[in-house]
Parts: sequence; structure tokens; C-alpha cells
Amino acid sequence: MKQFLSAHDVSDIKALVQRALEHKAAPQANKDFGAGKRIGLLFLNPSMRTRLSTQVAAQNLGMEAIVFNIGSEGWALEFEDGAIMNGTTVEHVKDAAPIMGNYFDILAIRTFPSLKNREEDYSERYIQQFVKYAGIPVVSLESATLHPLQSLTDVITITENWNKAHGPWTMDHGQKKPKVVLTWAPHVKALPQCVANSFAQWINAWGEAEFVITHPEGYELDEQFTRGATIIHNQDEALKDADFVYVKNWSSYQQYGQVLNNDPSWMLTLEKLKSTNDAKVMHCLPVRRNLELSDEVLDSSHSIVTQEAANRVWAAQAVLEAILKEGK
Amino acid sequence: MKQFLSAHDVSDIKALVQRALEHKAAPQANKDFGAGKRIGLLFLNPSMRTRLSTQVAAQNLGMEAIVFNIGSEGWALEFEDGAIMNGTTVEHVKDAAPIMGNYFDILAIRTFPSLKNREEDYSERYIQQFVKYAGIPVVSLESATLHPLQSLTDVITITENWNKAHGPWTMDHGQKKPKVVLTWAPHVKALPQCVANSFAQWINAWGEAEFVITHPEGYELDEQFTRGATIIHNQDEALKDADFVYVKNWSSYQQYGQVLNNDPSWMLTLEKLKSTNDAKVMHCLPVRRNLELSDEVLDSSHSIVTQEAANRVWAAQAVLEAILKEGK
Amino acid sequence: MKQFLSAHDVSDIKALVQRALEHKAAPQANKDFGAGKRIGLLFLNPSMRTRLSTQVAAQNLGMEAIVFNIGSEGWALEFEDGAIMNGTTVEHVKDAAPIMGNYFDILAIRTFPSLKNREEDYSERYIQQFVKYAGIPVVSLESATLHPLQSLTDVITITENWNKAHGPWTMDHGQKKPKVVLTWAPHVKALPQCVANSFAQWINAWGEAEFVITHPEGYELDEQFTRGATIIHNQDEALKDADFVYVKNWSSYQQYGQVLNNDPSWMLTLEKLKSTNDAKVMHCLPVRRNLELSDEVLDSSHSIVTQEAANRVWAAQAVLEAILKEGK
Repeated sequence: MKQFLSAHDVSDIKALVQRALEHKAAPQANKDFGAGKRIGLLFLNPSMRTRLSTQVAAQNLGMEAIVFNIGSEGWALEFEDGAIMNGTTVEHVKDAAPIMGNYFDILAIRTFPSLKNREEDYSERYIQQFVKYAGIPVVSLESATLHPLQSLTDVITITENWNKAHGPWTMDHGQKKPKVVLTWAPHVKALPQCVANSFAQWINAWGEAEFVITHPEGYELDEQFTRGATIIHNQDEALKDADFVYVKNWSSYQQYGQVLNNDPSWMLTLEKLKSTNDAKVMHCLPVRRNLELSDEVLDSSHSIVTQEAANRVWAAQAVLEAILKEGK
Repeated sequence: MKQFLSAHDVSDIKALVQRALEHKAAPQANKDFGAGKRIGLLFLNPSMRTRLSTQVAAQNLGMEAIVFNIGSEGWALEFEDGAIMNGTTVEHVKDAAPIMGNYFDILAIRTFPSLKNREEDYSERYIQQFVKYAGIPVVSLESATLHPLQSLTDVITITENWNKAHGPWTMDHGQKKPKVVLTWAPHVKALPQCVANSFAQWINAWGEAEFVITHPEGYELDEQFTRGATIIHNQDEALKDADFVYVKNWSSYQQYGQVLNNDPSWMLTLEKLKSTNDAKVMHCLPVRRNLELSDEVLDSSHSIVTQEAANRVWAAQAVLEAILKEGK
Repeated sequence: MKQFLSAHDVSDIKALVQRALEHKAAPQANKDFGAGKRIGLLFLNPSMRTRLSTQVAAQNLGMEAIVFNIGSEGWALEFEDGAIMNGTTVEHVKDAAPIMGNYFDILAIRTFPSLKNREEDYSERYIQQFVKYAGIPVVSLESATLHPLQSLTDVITITENWNKAHGPWTMDHGQKKPKVVLTWAPHVKALPQCVANSFAQWINAWGEAEFVITHPEGYELDEQFTRGATIIHNQDEALKDADFVYVKNWSSYQQYGQVLNNDPSWMLTLEKLKSTNDAKVMHCLPVRRNLELSDEVLDSSHSIVTQEAANRVWAAQAVLEAILKEGK
């Protein structure tokens, strides 16, 4: 793997999932593999789960990880070509990125969208400029429109639970596929579309699910990610016979960055889960309890959100290993 | 040891002190003991000495330590059960703690009291919720009411100095016990009772000192910690023949969190030390010079505050080792 | 080497440069050398390149590095002797430094000047107090008036490029020396004189260059650093036949900390470089593009700023190694 920015960077998702599950079974079996290799974790925006799980993954491979919080450590980067830098930015990405490329073997970056300029956000200019100038493999720790480490984790978690219930998928897939439903949830803030875009992209690329997306009108996601999924605006209908329900809020893509709807009836409840196939409930976390998801669901056996978050380590570990392999 | 929140978690304080002094004599003799084990250091409040000494201790045992500053890295945790999270908190401890429990082998946490609601502070709800939900051993890096790593360090430091002057304590304790005096000192801010509570709890549990506490009226500490000590409001009388004087400010427990007194005559001076048995002076640091403690005392041979702070490493190292041993 | 605060701490600059280039050729060849040794990186002011390169250097030597950001982690240090600490400072350097000296084997510190009180800044009281009280070797990560790791890097980078073009310097120096020009550049903010002072000090101490400094009137640097260099106020004249042009802004030393001039004609351009000997252009970074240095220069083959920044690692590695050797 040369970089890890989206599902398109992975040639065989099922093999990567399999490898992640092997890491889970033996976390430190490859402790020498990354010896002497170094990853820089660069946060233009804050992170908890992603930072910790990637640090743990790097350590499990014997790599050295160095964290740098650009914002709180006082670095304002310039991304505009040709800018006359007499304002607040202190360094151009053209100068900063190649230095990171000299200090590290892999550069991992988190950036958030502005949610103001859709074209700019969807061009992924921040992370793409690091790719352009760093000269080493770049890993997304969530970018303006995607969150691939989360989505790989989600496919791992679905696979793990489905295998446990039904036995491993066979080579000829002679089995019922799980029904996976991505449902929009209310929130008080305007959130990025990243996790939803990315989940859709990965479930489609993975190809092992019957995939349904449900949300209020006006919350249609970018078709480049959702194409292949069934989109239903009636949540009750969408949830019917679901095996996995993925809960997530996002702001509008069409009326870009706006909150069009706060209807609390979209919050998932135990009552709504009755029509499912005893569905497992997923969320990338952090979750606003009793706003996005009720206590009764999160504290029930339906919830696999802790397992999902814990699996972040194995996703990161499989990705870092694959990138180091490419370079060997 | 299953956890380390207070003196009650230690079955044999003297043995733990002895082990810490062995670590001091050979800091990296157990460099393989913690290999592959990982500690998360979670700071809801800032720390310097505690963070650094615990990182050093973990490294001495060959463990990997990952630091996360919850506040400055932008995480607002919710601790209220059943909260509708439509405000400023982004994640519930019920969701965050079990993930930490998956990423780490030991979780160490610092939280401060509000000093507004005594009942809430003394319930230790923050650290107790981590204990409840993390599913791994929790170490206090100072909590709302106690600071056990500091107090263990203090017992280590007293032992070390007493042994040096009088030879090691014998099995039958056929020796004079040192007189240890905890004295209140003035300060400009309202400080927690943690260090004083904890020192009292540990000196009492340790049982090897003649223990006196002195403070102005209105500064009585919670009896659950001080019971067993002699409490004297006259500082001069308390200091008489002292072998160790522990200086610390705290705000009122009864008129909770208030500063009732700023009387500079409570500041320890060389003059006051004349009636002691050439006492060693201790302080947990940071110390406000010439407010809590005069330069003349801190810069004299009475002061053992640097030795005390340095001993923080060996206290942490003995505790982490004991917890890892429990899990092996 | 006992400490690393300025060129005066290095007995043989050329040997140190040579050692750094050996580290560059084999970064992790000495991975066991620093095993069990620990460096504390203490930032009273923010840093990116310096922090990362020093961490990488320490790891290359097998040392453990612990970073502490004093400002953002909430520590306000007192540096005034005899202060009555009833204000905002929470700990005196007299108490903090010796503790660092107990936790670490080497203490590395970054401090900035106030640019308000020249006498105070040029006394280097902050870093000198750490030297006085820490009791272990201190490394400057940039202090009020100097930036020695940057300057050592600069000499390494000049050596490397000159050797590449002309073959290694021989023992008898029977070769033309490179012409090195330090030129002032415009900026919107009042910057320290550190990098310029330090560059002048090192190039003079190194003694292998024809050294010219050019700046507008009023920007004369402290003579203790520049003595030995030719100072010319006409930039065009200074640049003639230059082999290396070092670009840097600084505020006035005489009208201390003031910005006297913002003349954009001082910005280096390709046109100006025509009279040079196809000069290599250097800058310590971060650089304000199109203010200090034009895109056309930075994006041309004249620029060696990335190589220069990358060389920070080898400078730090040679220094840490030399200090550890002293202690062995």
C-alpha cells in the first residue's frame, strides 16, 4: 500500500480485514517488523481515539511514534499557492511537508473540513498538499471528506461479528449477506460528512453487504460514495431486518454544512430495533448520549461501540504494516 | 495490587517502601518486566512532576507510556448518568473509559476537585467512574481528595532519611519513632485538601511515626483521614522536637473550599525550626517561595524537597510493578 | 562536551560537523549508545522543527525523550531571586530545575527573549538559571540570544554542499574558502536576533568562510558575535560572488526589539542572485514566503532550505552523543 486516504488505496479489503484480525489475535507478534521506522502523527484538529489507537498500533509494530498538535503547539500553516505571507500563517505546507518527509517514514495527518466551502473541502486540498510535498506515504487520520481508518475498523467489526454468528465467509460467498443500515441521527452541531461518506465508500467497495442508507430529505450524501446503496427516507422501513445499524449525524451536503433538521424522532431506540434482525448497533464515537443514541440502546447488548473503538488499533496496525511492507 | 487510589489499596506499606528504595538503588534493573505493557496517563488537570516521574517510572520498567491531556486536547467528558448531551460535553465517561481499558494495561488519571460541592468532591465520582467503566487497574495521579503517589513518596523519603540517621528500622521496631508534623501554611489561592488528607492517611496507615497536625482553627481536615493524629492549633507547640515538618496549604474543609486565614506568621522560618530536632522540611512542590515557605528554609540544609520530588519516580515504579505483578 | 549553549562549548567544530555527517550516513548505527539515558525537552516557547528533530536524534541514539510544554501545560515559572510568590508564578526555577536534573540525564530547553529588556535578554538569565540549578548538562533549543543547534546545522549544510562541489576540505585548507553572506530580510513582526547572532558566532568560530553580513542601517548586531565579519549596508555589493546566502529577519539590537525598516526591496530575488556564484540559499525556517523570500527563489534549485532543516537531526544527534560521551 502506497498511501491510505480512502478505500481506493486498498487493493484487497477482505485480505486487509483478515490481517487486522490476525493482529488482534496476536497484537505484538510483529514487534520487530517496524523497528527503526518512525511515524509522525500530525494533528491540525484534535483527536482522542484516533491518536491513541494509532500510537498503540505503531508501538505494537515496534515503530516509534511522534505526535505533533499543530494547533495547540502554535503552528498556523499556509496552503494557498503564491500567498504573500504577511498575515497570521507562519509556514507554507510546501516548506513544512518535505521536512516531515525527512524526519519520518510515514506521515499521518488529521484535518477537518471548513463546512463553508464545499468545493474546497471536497478537493481535500489540505491532505493532498501534504501528499504532494511530503515525499513519503501519507495516512489519513480523518480528512475533510473521509475517515478511512474508521471505516476499515467498521468493516473489521462487522466481519468479526458476522463470522461469530454465522462462521467465516467462505471463498465462494455461498452465504446470506448481512443487511447493513447507515442511519442519520440528530445532533446540535453541524458535523462533517466524513464518517458517513467513508462508511458508504467502504461498504460499497467491500461488497459483502446489502447496504441501505436512511436519512431525512436534504441529507443526501455525495453520490460518488453512496452509489450502489439503497437510499430510503423512511427510517422504520430501512431498519427492517437489519443485521447492523450504523448511527451517525452529518450536516447537509447539498445545502452545504447546514443543519436542516433536528427531529428527535430520528434517534434510535429499542422500540425501533424490534423490527431488525436483533441488529448490532455501531457508532464511531464520541456519541452524544440521548441525542444521537439513547442510553437504553448504548447500554444494551445491541451496542458494539466499545468493541468497534477497540478495533481501531488493529485497523491502524494492518495499514501501517502494509505501507512498511511496500517500502521494504 | 489491584488499583492505587489510596493507602487502603496497599496491603503492606513498609514492603512497598522497601521495594521503592530498591528501585532507587537500581533504576533499570527490571527493564524487561513491563515489556509489551502500556500505561495511559490521562490528565483532566495539568501536571508536571507527576507526569514526568510516572513516565520515567514506566520507562524504567520497560513499559510504554502514552500521555493524553484531556483539557488542552479538546475533550470535554460527561459524568452525569442519563444526561441528555446537547451541551458542551462531547463524550460520556461510560463510553470513553472502556476504550481506554482496551488500549492500555493500566490507566492513570489526574482529576481535581471543584472545591464548590464537597459531597461531590469527596465521593470521588470522576476517578470512581473511570474505575467502574475502564475494566483495567486505575492509578490515581491525584484525585479530588487524595494524592497517594505523593504520600507514598513522602513515606519513602522519611524512611530514607530516618534510616540514614538512625539505621534501618528493625523488625521489632525497637526504636524511637520520628515525630512528623504536618503544618498548614498560607497561600493566595484556595487549594484542594488532597495532599494533606493523603499525607495524614498514609502516615496513620504506616504507623511508624508520632504524628501531629497543626493548623489555624477552621482548617480541620476530614476525620476519616486524620484520626490517630494529634491536632494542635498552636504551631510553636506542635513543632517542638519534630524530626520532620511537612508544610502544605489547604483550603477549609468545613467552610468548604474557602480561604479563612492568610496569616503570614504561619510561614515556616529558621527561627521556628530552632525548637525542632534539627527537623527535615518537606513539601510536595510546587511551592510558593516566601509565601508558603521562606527562601531561608528552602535554601538551607533543613530542606529535603528536591530529594522528595526525585523520589516520586521510585514510588511510581514500585506501584506500577506491583500492579503488573497482580496481573501476571 | 559539558553543555551546548553556544559555539564556545565546542572545542572542535569541524570534528563535530564531521561526526554529524557520519550520523547522516548511518542514522541508527549507534542505537545502543544512549540506551537507558533520558533527555527532557522543556519548551517555555513553542517549537516544531527543533522539537521533532531533537526527538528523532535522541531516538536514533536509543535514548528516551520526554517532551514538556511549560506554557500550554500550565506552568508559570519564577526566575527572580527572593521573589515573594503571591502572584501568577507557581514555581521557582530553583525548585523546578534540580528536579529535572534528577529525572533526566540531559535537559534541553527553549526560551525566547522578551525583546523589551535588552540587558535581561542578553544575560540569558532563563537558560542560565537552568544551568545553575539543574545539575546536569543543558542543551539550548534556542535561547534569548542564540540558536546553536540551528547554527551547527548551518555549518554542516554549508560543509556538505561545498564538499559536494569542491571535494572535502583538506587538512591544510589549501582551497578557496566559500563566500557566505548573511542578509537581513523584511518581516511583519519583531523577531529575535538569535538566529543571526548565532550564525555569525558559528561562522566566525568555524573560520572556513569569507563572511559578509548585510543589513539596513540600524540593524547592526551585537559585536561580540559579528566581530571578524565584513559588514556592508549595500545588499547588491554584499551578494557579489557569494557561494551561500543566508536569509533572515531580525529586529533592531540598538533600538532594542524595534522594527525600523520594512523595505520590500531587501527581499531576495532571482535577479539579485545573478551576481552571485550560483549561490545556495539558506533559511532556518519557518519562512514567510513572498515577504522574507520569494517563491521563485524558494522553489528554484538555489534553495537548500529543506536539506538544511533535515540536517537538524544530525546536528542534534552529534551534540547529544558528545554530551553522553563526556559523562561516560
